[in-house]
Amino acid sequence: MICDNISINSKGHLTFAGHDTVELAEKYGTPLYLMDENKIREHIRIYKNAMAEFFPEGSLPEFASKAFSCKQIYRIVKEEGINVDLVSMGEIYAAKSAGFPMENAFFHGNNKTDSDIKYAMESGVGHFVCDSADELNAVNRIAGELGKKQKLLLRITPGIDPHTHKKISTGSVDSKFGFPIETGAAKNAVKLALSLENLELSGFHCHVGSQIFESDPFIDAAEIMLGFISEVKNETGYMAKLLNLGGGLGVRYVESDPVIDYREKIGEIAAALNKMAEKLNIKLPEILMEPGRSLVADAGMTLYTVGSVKEIEGYKNYVSVDGGMTDNPRFALYESPYTVILASKADKECDFKASVVGRCCESGDIIQENVPLPKPCRGDVIAVLTTGAYNYTMASHYNRIPKPPVVMLKDGQDYVAVKRETVEDLCKLDV
Amino acid sequence: MICDNISINSKGHLTFAGHDTVELAEKYGTPLYLMDENKIREHIRIYKNAMAEFFPEGSLPEFASKAFSCKQIYRIVKEEGINVDLVSMGEIYAAKSAGFPMENAFFHGNNKTDSDIKYAMESGVGHFVCDSADELNAVNRIAGELGKKQKLLLRITPGIDPHTHKKISTGSVDSKFGFPIETGAAKNAVKLALSLENLELSGFHCHVGSQIFESDPFIDAAEIMLGFISEVKNETGYMAKLLNLGGGLGVRYVESDPVIDYREKIGEIAAALNKMAEKLNIKLPEILMEPGRSLVADAGMTLYTVGSVKEIEGYKNYVSVDGGMTDNPRFALYESPYTVILASKADKECDFKASVVGRCCESGDIIQENVPLPKPCRGDVIAVLTTGAYNYTMASHYNRIPKPPVVMLKDGQDYVAVKRETVEDLCKLDV
Repeated sequence: MICDNISINSKGHLTFAGHDTVELAEKYGTPLYLMDENKIREHIRIYKNAMAEFFPEGSLPEFASKAFSCKQIYRIVKEEGINVDLVSMGEIYAAKSAGFPMENAFFHGNNKTDSDIKYAMESGVGHFVCDSADELNAVNRIAGELGKKQKLLLRITPGIDPHTHKKISTGSVDSKFGFPIETGAAKNAVKLALSLENLELSGFHCHVGSQIFESDPFIDAAEIMLGFISEVKNETGYMAKLLNLGGGLGVRYVESDPVIDYREKIGEIAAALNKMAEKLNIKLPEILMEPGRSLVADAGMTLYTVGSVKEIEGYKNYVSVDGGMTDNPRFALYESPYTVILASKADKECDFKASVVGRCCESGDIIQENVPLPKPCRGDVIAVLTTGAYNYTMASHYNRIPKPPVVMLKDGQDYVAVKRETVEDLCKLDV
Repeated sequence: MICDNISINSKGHLTFAGHDTVELAEKYGTPLYLMDENKIREHIRIYKNAMAEFFPEGSLPEFASKAFSCKQIYRIVKEEGINVDLVSMGEIYAAKSAGFPMENAFFHGNNKTDSDIKYAMESGVGHFVCDSADELNAVNRIAGELGKKQKLLLRITPGIDPHTHKKISTGSVDSKFGFPIETGAAKNAVKLALSLENLELSGFHCHVGSQIFESDPFIDAAEIMLGFISEVKNETGYMAKLLNLGGGLGVRYVESDPVIDYREKIGEIAAALNKMAEKLNIKLPEILMEPGRSLVADAGMTLYTVGSVKEIEGYKNYVSVDGGMTDNPRFALYESPYTVILASKADKECDFKASVVGRCCESGDIIQENVPLPKPCRGDVIAVLTTGAYNYTMASHYNRIPKPPVVMLKDGQDYVAVKRETVEDLCKLDV
């Protein structure tokens, strides 16, 4: 199986984190998001320990909670003692109301409105990750109004083009994010930040992209960033205390994806950074990393019930499930690969091939094409693996379909982290 | 301007349905969905009158409410005396609670669960549009349990491939929707429907796709459907009372899109249908059509506030707004074209070019690329036109961004149809 928390039991049912998925589907109904809490904690510890082992003291991962945001995840992250990334008032509100220590939060985003900035400061967010001159000026002004000095990182675009999908590549110069080094904008931003009286510059941030399997793009970016830090030091005397390398390490969606050893990658990046710092004769800053997907993706699984099976002679077969692009828009957006298993007959031979499609009135509502399955029938349970990242957080209400609940699995127990939405919930703002 | 409800006033502000958009942005905040109620009613009447003029008595449009669903739209549709399409329990609930007469509702979808079917029947939905043998059996069984006889249409795939985006083309044989004629599945479905005791077959439905500008695909599909109806009559004696030709007539997103005269297209389709019916020596059934987009798209406009303007020397410019793929995912999904106007400086020369992008932490969060604008600054209001269809209904909470409100404009007045979501609303199901 693609991840060690997945197996098949004696009834021929798929199991996840030791639970019979067919029983969970019966207990909670479908569609249903499952999250394996132990797996999330395991991943967090791998990052945290590796960063403590290889990077300077104080180096820590931040959970990029846009991958999976609900109150409970902030409690888990708090218990594990790492930082979080927040990208909106909604995420700040959720983290704050879950009791997350806001001084350990980093507030991201290419467009923070004045209301966002004020809300974040009043909530005590530790660092802003500033993305534009417009924002620096707004943050300075609002900090002044509130009588605060706001710590921040500057988001720098190093000019790296990683080998990943263009929609999730963010490190190249031509990007809506950050200040490019190449054009001189990054250096100007440093000067602006240092000149504004209500700002305290802690360092720099970069992010090269998502779902990257090699350490090269990170090493390239890190070397460019250290070069930039050194230049800034020489030119202005300012030495960065923090260097945030962003997120982006990949996860396995399908068997053909490589297995990633996160500790090993972090070690490789650290070795390159140390070498570069030595060459530049600067002290390596504290390193931050922002794993999102790689902390939660394979901790997630989605269960659906089959509604119809259509065999179109001479063309192909369609298996319709009771969810789709509303709870997982990633195929519709990026044609993302997923592993799909007939959970209720997981021990049967996969002698049938079908497009597994959603229930929306839209042809593009596809979970995955050309899926080998045992032939399913109405009522069977289908599992889509590795859905812990960018599924619940990207869910829509298209076709007025309510969002599924999130059920957490921990030490053989199961509990609801997000309740199932009802049609009444959906329409509560309609006048 | 692309639609006659848009203009520029003496302040140089864009107006919509006679309202100053900058004043509306101030009054309600941004992002903000606007809907021009008069324009919706105007479109409904064009369809209704043309169908009364050209088609047999009883012919009516149905509003495909997946394009725009909230309680208020069902009240408007009810007042205009046309039918609706509903595709989920959520849409049924909204229509029902708005007092829509449910006998005039058609329940669509390629995967209706047992709960959906029961809920729809108990709500008194007039017709099911059945999509698979699995569904026919389930509808028959549940109708039996409830002591009902359920009226239905069968969704037939005529085998037409219209010249439109593949994700929104639905009439070809290789589709998750309906029963293909080509494979014999359609005729088998008729026999099955006629044999099941709790079902009453009213006729047939087809849908060739979306955003179609020519009448040819409709005429081709209609001719194939009449041929099918004739064959079924000869073989089984069953004569369809209703023929639903689906939706799909296009709208103008950009100036280069053709202006469509819906009355003329309906006249062309009617002429072809009458000729074909005569040739086949059958009586033309009552005709239904399912406009969604063409009733509401250009009745909608979205307002945003500019947050940052980035000029990346040697590359391009980026203008970030306070919404994006969360309130309008259509560029991210289909690279859909839109007309974008700097509403607060609508009379100024467009001597600046930029990608107008959203606020999500995602490179693919684009509203439109290469937009000519007067150079904007933080605080300017940007309008995106023709957003009345598939924007509010497709909105997500990605990055935990709340949904904008929907404000209706009518006869110089403005009122809230859907309230602005708060961060508290967003997190209310989090445990």
